[in-house]
Amino acid sequence: MNANALPRPRPEIIAAVGASLTERLGARVTAAQAVLDQHSHGEGLPAVGVPDLVVFPETNEEVAFVLARCNERRVPVTPFGAGSSLEGQLAALAGGVSLDMGRFAKILEVTPESLDCRVQAGVTREALNAHIRDTGLFFPVDPGANASLGGMASTRASGTNAVRYGTMRENILGLTVVTPDGRIVRTGSRARKSSAGLDLTHLYVGSEGTLGVITEIQLRLYGVPETIVAAVCQFDKLEDAVAAVVTALQSNLEMARIELLDEVQMRAAIRYSKLDYAETPTLFLEFHGSPNGVREDVEMMQTITTDLGGGEFQFAERPEDRSRLWKARHNSYQAVMALSPGKSNMGTDACVPISALPACLLETKADIVASGLTAPIVGHVGDGNFHLGILFDPNDADETERAEALAFRTARRAISMGGTCSGEHGVGLHKIVHMEAEHGQGIALMKAVKKALDPNGIMNPGKLYP
Amino acid sequence: MNANALPRPRPEIIAAVGASLTERLGARVTAAQAVLDQHSHGEGLPAVGVPDLVVFPETNEEVAFVLARCNERRVPVTPFGAGSSLEGQLAALAGGVSLDMGRFAKILEVTPESLDCRVQAGVTREALNAHIRDTGLFFPVDPGANASLGGMASTRASGTNAVRYGTMRENILGLTVVTPDGRIVRTGSRARKSSAGLDLTHLYVGSEGTLGVITEIQLRLYGVPETIVAAVCQFDKLEDAVAAVVTALQSNLEMARIELLDEVQMRAAIRYSKLDYAETPTLFLEFHGSPNGVREDVEMMQTITTDLGGGEFQFAERPEDRSRLWKARHNSYQAVMALSPGKSNMGTDACVPISALPACLLETKADIVASGLTAPIVGHVGDGNFHLGILFDPNDADETERAEALAFRTARRAISMGGTCSGEHGVGLHKIVHMEAEHGQGIALMKAVKKALDPNGIMNPGKLYP
Repeated sequence: MNANALPRPRPEIIAAVGASLTERLGARVTAAQAVLDQHSHGEGLPAVGVPDLVVFPETNEEVAFVLARCNERRVPVTPFGAGSSLEGQLAALAGGVSLDMGRFAKILEVTPESLDCRVQAGVTREALNAHIRDTGLFFPVDPGANASLGGMASTRASGTNAVRYGTMRENILGLTVVTPDGRIVRTGSRARKSSAGLDLTHLYVGSEGTLGVITEIQLRLYGVPETIVAAVCQFDKLEDAVAAVVTALQSNLEMARIELLDEVQMRAAIRYSKLDYAETPTLFLEFHGSPNGVREDVEMMQTITTDLGGGEFQFAERPEDRSRLWKARHNSYQAVMALSPGKSNMGTDACVPISALPACLLETKADIVASGLTAPIVGHVGDGNFHLGILFDPNDADETERAEALAFRTARRAISMGGTCSGEHGVGLHKIVHMEAEHGQGIALMKAVKKALDPNGIMNPGKLYP
Repeated sequence: MNANALPRPRPEIIAAVGASLTERLGARVTAAQAVLDQHSHGEGLPAVGVPDLVVFPETNEEVAFVLARCNERRVPVTPFGAGSSLEGQLAALAGGVSLDMGRFAKILEVTPESLDCRVQAGVTREALNAHIRDTGLFFPVDPGANASLGGMASTRASGTNAVRYGTMRENILGLTVVTPDGRIVRTGSRARKSSAGLDLTHLYVGSEGTLGVITEIQLRLYGVPETIVAAVCQFDKLEDAVAAVVTALQSNLEMARIELLDEVQMRAAIRYSKLDYAETPTLFLEFHGSPNGVREDVEMMQTITTDLGGGEFQFAERPEDRSRLWKARHNSYQAVMALSPGKSNMGTDACVPISALPACLLETKADIVASGLTAPIVGHVGDGNFHLGILFDPNDADETERAEALAFRTARRAISMGGTCSGEHGVGLHKIVHMEAEHGQGIALMKAVKKALDPNGIMNPGKLYP
C-alpha cells in the first residue's frame, strides 16, 4: 500500500495548529517521533501513515476544540482507540493529527435496572466487563482483541456472541459524537427503541472516524445466563461441520456461540494454546439459558452433529475451562502468526447469508488448496462470517501476489453470493477496492453524506470511500 | 394543524408533470377527487393535505421515472403505503404527487435456509405471514394495523413482539431505495451483519419518505417456536403490574410479548372484543421456546406476578384462543374509539428506559386523572413503550387544548427521563414539536443529511424536521 500518497498539510500549518492546541492541552500534544510512529498504524496488514502530531484529549470539549482548530486549517484528524483495528483504519495517510482516545477511559454510568451503561470511547471491552462483574451483567460483543468500545463502534465490530446477542449495531442505543466543526452532539436515547427522526446513531456506527469522533457510547447489557455450557465437537470433514451449523440455525436452536475452525486453524490453536484436541475441522459451541433449556439445546445439537458424523461433545463446563477455550479462540490471530514466524497475515472477512455458507466456505477452501498457500479458516459461522489468515512472505513478490489474489477472490465470492467483503473488521484502507462491487450506486450516497457532515474532508482521509 | 400552510406547485407545473407521467403510466396517474381525498391523510389525528395527483407505480424504474420528473420541476412527492400511519406522515402538505405503493405487492423471494425474504414495499405484514405460513417461518413485527412493510420500514415500526424479536430496525438487512433524482440503489446485503461502509439501510429506515422511496425490503424471518403459550394476568394496581414487568426483564426471563393494559383500556377491550376479564390493570403475556423452556419461564413469571399481587394466569394455549387475545390487543385503537363515539383519539408514543418506566407510567396516570380526560393506557412495556389514547371532542376547544397539553407533557416526560417522544409511530407532523427537545444539535445533522440526499426538498415536505 502506498501509504503516503495523499497530500499532507504544510509544516507551517502544523506548527500553527500545534501551537494553538498546545496552548490548551499542554504536553498532551506531542510530536515525539516514538509516539508518532506508534500512532502510524494498527494491527493487520502494513498500512502506515505517520501523523504530524498526536493529541490526547480528556473531555468532549477538548475534542471539539481540537477538531474545530484542525477544521479551520484543513488539518486531517485520524481517531485512534486501542490500536487493534485490522484494515488500516489508523494510518494517518495524510498526516495531521492522530487523536488518541485512550484517556476517555471512564465508565460514566451503569444502570442495572435498565440493563444499560454509558462509557467513554476509550474504555476497552475487558475493562467494562471487569467493572460490571459484580452486577451480574455482561457486555457480549467480543472481537479477538481487547479493543476500545469507541473503536468497536466505529468499525461496527462483532465477535463470537453475535449469533445470539448481535453486533455493535444492535447493542448501541446512543452516542456522543463531535463533528468536524466542533459541535458536541448526543444521538439516540436510552430507550430500547425509537422512531423519532433519522437514525444518526447508526450513521456514525461503522463510519470509521470519517464523519466525526465518537466520544461516548450508550450500550445494552445482558444478565449473565443462569447456565452456560461450552462444548467442542470435531468432524472429519469441513462440509459436515458447516452442514451441522446450517441445520442448527434452521432448527430454532438458540446458541450463544458457533465457531468453526478448520484443521489448519486447529493445528495453529493447538500449538499456540496447548489444547488437547485433534487437528480436524472443529466447532466450538456455547449454550446460554436455564438449566433445562440448555440441556434440551445441547441434546438437540448433539443429535444434529452426530447425524452428520461429528464426534462426541467435549464439554467445558467449569468457568476456567470455558475461559481457556475461548481464550484460545480469541488468540487465533496470534496462533496463526506463530505458525510461520516471519510471515505476514493477510486477513479476510467474508460474510454471506447462511444458505450460501456451505458453498462459499467449500469453494474458498478449494481455492486455498489450489493457491498453495497456508491460510487457516476460522469463523463466526452462526452469522455466516469467516476469516482466512493468509500467510505470506512480504519479501516474496510472487507469494504476496498470490495471497492478494486469494484474498480478493474470497471477498468477491462473498459479494457475489449476496454477502459482504467485511463482516466485522470494517473497510479501512484494505477493503476499499471492493466497495464499488458491493455497493454500486450506494457509494454516491455515502459520499454525499460524508460531504454533508465533513465538508472539508478532514476526518480520516483515504479510508472507506473509494 | 394548518394543513395547507406550505406553498404548492403552480397548476401549470402539475399539468406538465402530470402529462409526462401519464405518457408512461397511463391511467395509473389520476387526479380524480375521490382518489385525491383518499390519499390526503392517514389514521390518527387529522392532518390533511390533498395531493394534486396520485400515481400508482409498478416497478422500480417507474418510481425512478416519477421521482426524476417531479424533482426536475420541484414537485413534492409523498409516499403512501397502506394508509395506516398515525402521525400525519401521509398528508400531502405541499400538494404534488401522492405515490401509492400498493401495487408493489410481490413477495420476491423467500429463502428458508437463510431465514430471510425479499418483498416489495407494498406487501402488508399479514400478506407476508400468510404467504410463508407453510414454511414454518414467520415475520414477527406487528403494529396494530395491517400496515405495508414499506411503511413499517419508513416509520421504524414495531409492535408486540419487539421485546424478543426487535423492531423493523433489527429485522431489515437491506433495501432498494429510489433517490429523488431517480437513482435505484440497493443498500445492505443478505448477510446477517456487515461492516462495509456507511449504514445506508438504517439511514432510510425511519426516514419517513423524506430521503427517497423504499421499494424493496430484505427481511429476517424466524422459525415458528415449538411451543407458544399466552397468558393473561390481572392486577389490582397499575404499579404492581409495572413492577412485575421490570422484575421479569431483570431476571433474564425471555418473553416474546409483555403488554400492559390499564383498567380503562381493559374496559374498552372487553366491550369491543367481548373478552371475559375484569376491568383492572392487566398483562397480556406470551412465551416462545421449547416445551421445557417455556414451562420454566411461565413458572418463573408466575412467581414474580404472584409476589406482586397478580392473579392466577389465565392461559390461552389453543391457537384460536391466542389469536383472539392478540386480535383484541391489536384492535385497541378501534376499541378506544368505540368507547366514546364521536370523539377523536390523540395518540402518544412515549418510550423510556425500563428503569424509568414505573415512574413515567405512574406520573402519566396521575396526570390523566388530574386532566379529567379519558385516556386509556396500553403499552409494549417490555420495550418501555406505552400509548395513551386521549379521547377529546375536536369541536370543544377547551377539551382539545387539555388533550394537547396532556399529550405534550407525556412526550416531554419521556424525553426528560432519557427516552423518546416516539417509540414506534414516527415523527410525521404531530411530533415535530418535540424534536428539538429530544435531539438538540442532532437536528442540524439530520437536516444536513436531508439536504445532501434530497437537495430540492421534494420528498414528503413538512414532515419530521422542525
